[in-house]
Amino acid sequence: MTPILDAARAAIARCQWIATRTEDPGRTTRTFLSPPMREVHDDLRAWMETLGMSVRVDDAGNLRGRTGDTPAVIIGSHLDTVPDAGMYDGVLGVVLGITLVQLMADRALPVDVEVIGFSEEEGVRFGVPFIGSRALVGDAADLLACTDAHGVSVREALQRYGLNAGDISNAQVAPSARAYLEFHIEQGPVLDLLTVPLGVVEAIAGQSRVELTFTGRCNHAGTTPMAARHDALTGAAEWIGAVEQLAVTTPGLVATVGRVQTAPNVGNAIPGRVVASLDVRHADDTERRDAVDRLLVTARSIADRRGLVVTDARHVDQAAVRMAPALTESLARAVADSGLPVHRMASGAGHDAMIVARRVPSAMLFLRSPGGVSHHPDERVLETDVAAALEVGVRWLRNWETPRA
Amino acid sequence: MTPILDAARAAIARCQWIATRTEDPGRTTRTFLSPPMREVHDDLRAWMETLGMSVRVDDAGNLRGRTGDTPAVIIGSHLDTVPDAGMYDGVLGVVLGITLVQLMADRALPVDVEVIGFSEEEGVRFGVPFIGSRALVGDAADLLACTDAHGVSVREALQRYGLNAGDISNAQVAPSARAYLEFHIEQGPVLDLLTVPLGVVEAIAGQSRVELTFTGRCNHAGTTPMAARHDALTGAAEWIGAVEQLAVTTPGLVATVGRVQTAPNVGNAIPGRVVASLDVRHADDTERRDAVDRLLVTARSIADRRGLVVTDARHVDQAAVRMAPALTESLARAVADSGLPVHRMASGAGHDAMIVARRVPSAMLFLRSPGGVSHHPDERVLETDVAAALEVGVRWLRNWETPRA
Repeated sequence: MTPILDAARAAIARCQWIATRTEDPGRTTRTFLSPPMREVHDDLRAWMETLGMSVRVDDAGNLRGRTGDTPAVIIGSHLDTVPDAGMYDGVLGVVLGITLVQLMADRALPVDVEVIGFSEEEGVRFGVPFIGSRALVGDAADLLACTDAHGVSVREALQRYGLNAGDISNAQVAPSARAYLEFHIEQGPVLDLLTVPLGVVEAIAGQSRVELTFTGRCNHAGTTPMAARHDALTGAAEWIGAVEQLAVTTPGLVATVGRVQTAPNVGNAIPGRVVASLDVRHADDTERRDAVDRLLVTARSIADRRGLVVTDARHVDQAAVRMAPALTESLARAVADSGLPVHRMASGAGHDAMIVARRVPSAMLFLRSPGGVSHHPDERVLETDVAAALEVGVRWLRNWETPRA
Repeated sequence: MTPILDAARAAIARCQWIATRTEDPGRTTRTFLSPPMREVHDDLRAWMETLGMSVRVDDAGNLRGRTGDTPAVIIGSHLDTVPDAGMYDGVLGVVLGITLVQLMADRALPVDVEVIGFSEEEGVRFGVPFIGSRALVGDAADLLACTDAHGVSVREALQRYGLNAGDISNAQVAPSARAYLEFHIEQGPVLDLLTVPLGVVEAIAGQSRVELTFTGRCNHAGTTPMAARHDALTGAAEWIGAVEQLAVTTPGLVATVGRVQTAPNVGNAIPGRVVASLDVRHADDTERRDAVDRLLVTARSIADRRGLVVTDARHVDQAAVRMAPALTESLARAVADSGLPVHRMASGAGHDAMIVARRVPSAMLFLRSPGGVSHHPDERVLETDVAAALEVGVRWLRNWETPRA
């Protein structure tokens, strides 16, 4: 077995062990600084220390280990999970960072490396995501007062873990940091459908979230002829079809109606009101905003024709984040040099890289998710894909030799 | 003022007073044999006794007053209400029956009349409707064990009211009963849209209720390209459009999707499952069943095309009930003789007449519902429409002179 395939197997086994550190026996659930997070920190700390790295948990709860003391390349992802999670989302990116340090330890590393295991990305415990990476870019002070379902604030959670929330600004990344690289499972089916092991992420898609309310007139399902109806649900259904149609015909656009609430929601009454969510994502913000505008115009035209009223509330308008083009290119080159097809893609989900990119040039490499499964215990990675990612990581880190020389 | 217009005003005022007899201060709610029902019985009993009628409450809780002792024409409707009801649904038909006896009291009635105020039609307290009229046709014994939200059975409720559930078979209609006539508000907008005061009901529509479950695959709304989706909601939405389309293009058909339950029903997940209700009504059972069959075929074809699975459970298949053609004709003649347009129609809602028709030739006359409002405090009737209904009732009762002579 090659050292890289062996390292890939060990990385996968480490992720599987970490998945057993959970708040929820029998399932994997590990939220911000919950007790099992300490076991994960202890394990990864011990491993990094055997590699000669200096390790600390910063005051935002991020686990950080680094080699040397020169400006570093950061490799990271998050250590928290959604409830009943898979074994690789987030964790794999941290384990691969340490594995790369280990793989290259037999010769001098071309550049110092800092591995970060972010304390929080999923937004489960406090309802706000990215606590760890926001602290890294100095944007977490506002979050300290957020409380979880038990009324415990982020500040108190940090203190209970033995950290000092007052020092959270110390979590900020060194201005000298040279780059940020995040390995992450794709969480979607694209690479699997293409039978491509890795994807070079060019951008993290922007996202709009809108809530639409269609109001018609509730009436008796038996006594109201079709021509006299103002059925909020048939109007909403027509619009849901238009949402799908626009997305199918617009390259790179995804648009989803995920939540529908019908009132009164009984079988023998014509629905008087439907509240529907709209989630629109695209790597190009203009395309995304145009799509939202068009879908709202469509909703109004459907409503007008049907004697309904539609209102909308725009809840999220989050711009797309481009990865640093030079890094994307060097990553693509490393993929090609590894003898693999280069597939460039946008990420439809948010990632820590999107936050870190505010301060540090950032890049992301996706690993194929067999079946596109995400946020589910069935989430998997292929050993050969993990080995390919490590191969690419080794080549990419070697890029840093020249500027340092 | 003509005696009939005066009687119409009095009838409306009586309905308004009855509406104040409620379980629910400030709103009208009067379920099976609840305490306010006794006040309504007492009031109507006293009124009928002043008209020389003999009055009893039968062992199903129906209030019954009759003139004479020869085979009677029955005029009735129900005295219970839905929660937060209007003032006329059901009650008006009982009050008009007594008003007709009163109007004709100055000369000999052409036929003996029995007025029945049914104890239960709406199905609110026990979840089963038509308790009163089912007792009249000898089909209520199975209902005695039904319990309300407090665990009180129909049997106990009857006993608490001072009735003897063991004698419920005594509520059965005399085999000699000559006809049943029910006045009822339309509960729909048809007469109002046509600006016609009264409608002659030819049939009570049959009804199908089906529950469909569309199952697709739940996935991440950001990372799953449109082409890789199996979205249960877009499939259900397409089908909801097909339901509407078929009903709009099929004369006399109404079809409604009133209830939709989406899972997981969160904004950033592609719905994996949608459960939808289907309510289909038509006066012609073949048309109705054909429509249901076609809609299920359509659902399967939509599901196949989208990689979804659809299953269905048929919960209700209730046949249409024709009113007695000879009575419908005599009622139509009475409408025409009153100088009013004759509008023949089907009832999309169920009524006591549908049950009574199993034993007694039955007819129904609808009064226009301004705005089509039903089961709502805004429910109204027009004074002139009530007068027209009384005029028709007087003429219709006079029909019975000849066969008696």
